[in-house]
Parts: sequence; structure tokens; C-alpha cells
Amino acid sequence: MKKDNVFLRIPAAIPDEIFETIAENAHVKIERIISDGHTTPEDSWYDQGHDEWVILLKGIAEITFENEPQSLVLKPGDYVLIPAFSRHRVTRTDEKQPTVWLAVHMKP
Amino acid sequence: MKKDNVFLRIPAAIPDEIFETIAENAHVKIERIISDGHTTPEDSWYDQGHDEWVILLKGIAEITFENEPQSLVLKPGDYVLIPAFSRHRVTRTDEKQPTVWLAVHMKP
Repeated sequence: MKKDNVFLRIPAAIPDEIFETIAENAHVKIERIISDGHTTPEDSWYDQGHDEWVILLKGIAEITFENEPQSLVLKPGDYVLIPAFSRHRVTRTDEKQPTVWLAVHMKP
Repeated sequence: MKKDNVFLRIPAAIPDEIFETIAENAHVKIERIISDGHTTPEDSWYDQGHDEWVILLKGIAEITFENEPQSLVLKPGDYVLIPAFSRHRVTRTDEKQPTVWLAVHMKP
């Protein structure tokens, strides 16, 4: 069995957010996301047909949901279940260091 | 949307390993596991009919697979995919502090 580490292989320069599938089967996809100050473009929303569970492991992030006045600030260890069709945007990620997330996409 | 944190609510005393489901649907179960020096009994194996992906977030752990001479030592950030029917035992967890794991059980 081979292990890997979620904090390894973080490039020095991250011009675009990095999305890597680190495990997957027919029903689940586990993804590592590395942000470096990136946010979702202002006129755009994530609007997914499946539940997504996300945990922040390094850095800081803020998620804004279309139907909620208050944004959610995530620090290391914080997690949230984003139900399908909950329109949301990432409105901040750490500007001083890479932000590392894990996302578990639960296919319906 | 409500966040929670994987490092919160760790009891001062942990006589038995703690297994908590923190998200679940028909195909996936995400579990937080807190160990405190616990190991799998010597005459017993985990032998599961589904793939399990596990990441260690705090502490240290060692997993021994029946068919591998070398145990796998996990430190924070380390993860491994344990395929279905890979008989394994947890042969060590941190004796000095609670060990926090996340397990994603991928139902077949």
C-alpha cells in the first residue's frame, strides 16, 4: 500500500488554482485543491448537482452562499457539507500562503 | 450552511476509540476517528468489503497489512487508499496525544 501526503508537491508558483483527483470510484471523487489567493470570478457561481463535503487543511478561505447573508470563514480543520444546488462562490483564499483543501464529491 | 472543525470536541479521556459519522449519503460515509494509543487487537483484522480512503490529521499511526512485510507509518497529512478486502490492523497510534483521522468509506 502506498501513502502520499496532502501537503507535498505544492508548487512555488500557482498561477491557476490546482485541482487534483487523489482517489475516485463510481460514486466518490476525492480532490485536493490548492488555491493561492484565488477566488471565484464575481459573475460566476459553483452550482453542482451533487453534495460536496469540503475540509480546509492549510491557509484560510471564505465561501459565500447565494442564499445566506453571512459568508463562511474556514480555518484549518474546518469542514462544511455543501448540498447539491447550493450556489456558492469562494470569495477569499489566503494571500500569504497556499491554501490546501480536500473536497469529497459525493456523486448522486 | 454550518461549519464544524475536526479538531474540536476531543475528550480529555478516551477510554475507547471514537468513531463519529460526520457526513453520509447512500454511497459514502465520512468518519472522524480519534485514537489515544489504541491499536487493533492482536488476533483481529479489519477486512472490509468496500474501499476506504484515510488521512491522518493529528498524531501518528502505523497500519500493518497482512500481505506486506513493511508497516505504513502515517504522520499528519499522510493518506492511503485501502482497497476492499485488504486485511489490515492499526499497530500503533500516538501514545502522547490523541490521533485524529478522517476516513472516507466508499460504499461499492
